[in-house]
Amino acid sequence: MRFNIPDSTKPRLVIIGAGFAGFTLARKLKGKKFQIVLLDKNNFHQFQPLFYQVAMSGLEPSSICFPLRKNFQSEQDFYVRVAEVTRVLPDQKRIESSIGILKYDYLVFAMGAQTNYYGNSKFEQFSIPLKSVSEALYLRNAILDDLEQAVMSQESVEQEELMNIVIVGGGPTGVELAGALSELKRHILPKDYPDLNANKMNIHLVQSSNRLLDGMSEKASAVAQKNLTEMGVLLHLSTYVTDMSFNAVVLSNGVQLKARKIIWAAGVKAAAIPGLPEICYDKSGKIKVNNKAEVMGLEHIFAIGDVCMMTNGNDEKGLPGLAPVALQQADYLAKNLLKPDAGKFQKGFRYRDKGAMATIGRSKAVLDFHGLFLSGLPAWLAWLLVHIYYLIGVRNKVIVFINWVWSYIFYDQALRLNIRPKLPRTMDHFKFEENTTQ
Amino acid sequence: MRFNIPDSTKPRLVIIGAGFAGFTLARKLKGKKFQIVLLDKNNFHQFQPLFYQVAMSGLEPSSICFPLRKNFQSEQDFYVRVAEVTRVLPDQKRIESSIGILKYDYLVFAMGAQTNYYGNSKFEQFSIPLKSVSEALYLRNAILDDLEQAVMSQESVEQEELMNIVIVGGGPTGVELAGALSELKRHILPKDYPDLNANKMNIHLVQSSNRLLDGMSEKASAVAQKNLTEMGVLLHLSTYVTDMSFNAVVLSNGVQLKARKIIWAAGVKAAAIPGLPEICYDKSGKIKVNNKAEVMGLEHIFAIGDVCMMTNGNDEKGLPGLAPVALQQADYLAKNLLKPDAGKFQKGFRYRDKGAMATIGRSKAVLDFHGLFLSGLPAWLAWLLVHIYYLIGVRNKVIVFINWVWSYIFYDQALRLNIRPKLPRTMDHFKFEENTTQ
Repeated sequence: MRFNIPDSTKPRLVIIGAGFAGFTLARKLKGKKFQIVLLDKNNFHQFQPLFYQVAMSGLEPSSICFPLRKNFQSEQDFYVRVAEVTRVLPDQKRIESSIGILKYDYLVFAMGAQTNYYGNSKFEQFSIPLKSVSEALYLRNAILDDLEQAVMSQESVEQEELMNIVIVGGGPTGVELAGALSELKRHILPKDYPDLNANKMNIHLVQSSNRLLDGMSEKASAVAQKNLTEMGVLLHLSTYVTDMSFNAVVLSNGVQLKARKIIWAAGVKAAAIPGLPEICYDKSGKIKVNNKAEVMGLEHIFAIGDVCMMTNGNDEKGLPGLAPVALQQADYLAKNLLKPDAGKFQKGFRYRDKGAMATIGRSKAVLDFHGLFLSGLPAWLAWLLVHIYYLIGVRNKVIVFINWVWSYIFYDQALRLNIRPKLPRTMDHFKFEENTTQ
Repeated sequence: MRFNIPDSTKPRLVIIGAGFAGFTLARKLKGKKFQIVLLDKNNFHQFQPLFYQVAMSGLEPSSICFPLRKNFQSEQDFYVRVAEVTRVLPDQKRIESSIGILKYDYLVFAMGAQTNYYGNSKFEQFSIPLKSVSEALYLRNAILDDLEQAVMSQESVEQEELMNIVIVGGGPTGVELAGALSELKRHILPKDYPDLNANKMNIHLVQSSNRLLDGMSEKASAVAQKNLTEMGVLLHLSTYVTDMSFNAVVLSNGVQLKARKIIWAAGVKAAAIPGLPEICYDKSGKIKVNNKAEVMGLEHIFAIGDVCMMTNGNDEKGLPGLAPVALQQADYLAKNLLKPDAGKFQKGFRYRDKGAMATIGRSKAVLDFHGLFLSGLPAWLAWLLVHIYYLIGVRNKVIVFINWVWSYIFYDQALRLNIRPKLPRTMDHFKFEENTTQ
């Protein structure tokens, strides 16, 4: 297999990753002065902020994903390829990938972040991450499988284990998951599984720092903690996980929590690709860039979004791994690349703080915006609007909106379906055999 | 694991299968004089007539599936279990299953049909069936994968193989698939895959009898053949498949067709369960019943839908394997079981012919109804209405309607997403290890 991309009179710009950063950049640059090659592991863009709703049977994957080819239909000199990039060779201006080697003139890293288990293989082995729509679907199926098993179990210890869920990490993902699980427990479980005692289901939320949502204001943390506690979520603050098995976690205070599903939302690291000089990566694996998104010391190589560590002068902490940062960086880079002197920008990137928000449950959310704090229904409505606004595709917006109205009216997440694409037998073994009929 | 179903003062009626027949029967009998146990391999009812639209990226699985537990929420003495029944022990009035053994007072077989490869292991090995929503999703992913591969192939022979599709079987499923694929080829491919030559994609439809839709009128066949030919589908009538490999089929006339995707829509057989006396099964594996849906010679055992062979007196051919037959049989059986003398019915089942229809493409369909024949737009609109009417769930009806309107306006099937539920590593190996944390 090869890239099979024809030469062009335009310089070739390769974008690795079609998340918020890469997808936005591609949209802004298409049809202009570059030949664009957009690479992603999947044939679609995925909208990360709503993964948890897919896991909770509230939305279909297709409602928060958008086919890349459809978005860039009929573009001239634009090439979408499903590929995993394995190495960069900056000296040769080439990348190595699962589908071959490709030369570039300009290269943009936008691979985003991946789950960080901090080197602990048990955490990786026994917990479920939530950094892709495929993982979200896996979690949905696991929840449904375990509930069916719980129905049939006659040991109450096993039954509780099957129903319990431990969420590790009290950031927005952890909080949103905990809230949604609580609603599942209170509104769906008693009706769908009358043979189970819903009260036996424990939802644990483990947070290493002393407050939830510690990237947001203290008010936001306080409201989130109050709401979740009222909703029956068991909070474990200033606590971290020290050990894990298929059916339990051990906390730093010695407490053991029993659960068959342990969700890992406790951290991310850069999804960087090897091949750059070592000094280009920071200790968390991010690609260091200056405030013009240029990778230090390399010509025509850029990094934007969660994969980059952009230090505006002395601020060594870098910008947070948020969608608005990725979107604004993509916007900035596109504008500058389109200037006649592409690659020699004058003005550095400045992040315009868009605030932060998290939803907790029905009519419950928290929102920080430049010192302003909102909670309850107003924050929740703002959350809904912002997410519909940023979703890609009119059809997706319509479908998500209908789903949300439906859930709101009927207290129901309608998609409790355990579906896996499969055949009665696996065909893949045979697919590449040299077994042609003569 | 066990069934874990409490005893009841009511007699226990076990329904195996939640397709049209079993699902309808359960809905009619719920909350009445039986304790009901509804068993299915999946936790949802699936709407078979629209599988092909899932495969063609036109509809989401969730739009044509309905969670069983949601439908029977809060019912008294009603038990849904996800289980595969492996054997019946009529002497003991028990069934054996993947989740244990269960006693019944009344037993209804409604497992439907499964793909029939007529004993040819190559056909089973190399073709893709379309008898479940999981198989439909598999086909969707296979089509998308192969198109991505075709883009990267530089050998035109391989490229054509990857694009080509052979459909074996010219009944409604085959015709509907062929029509939908032709629309994909003409409306989507040129836009989504500008680097591919859409004209190189060949859609073959192989039919053993001398006309398509041979269960319908000759007029219907003629229109379907005319429409599909105009739409570029290559018809092979009076032809059957004699050999198959991963990338080709050989036809009875010696012609070899090259294709990486071979879809098997050439026949079904009963999905019967062993354990009944041999005389209860006919030679195609169906369960023989009298016109009261009673399995010959066995008390309180019934069979309805595609799994049964009901002979009304001398008509040895039996009723066709159609949704209306299953629905009417379920209705009949429910009414009779609810009578005081359940099991001793007076009146036999009579099938009221609801006609037959098949859609071919945009504004193109054929419809037979008691000698009346419709085609074109009127038949197509009737097809849409009937399918929305029979779909389970208001939400599903709304979502499918929106999808269809959308596709009609924009000439687009929006869901070209290659999504699989998965984790970066497989967790299942670990799940059942005795590896608890102490």
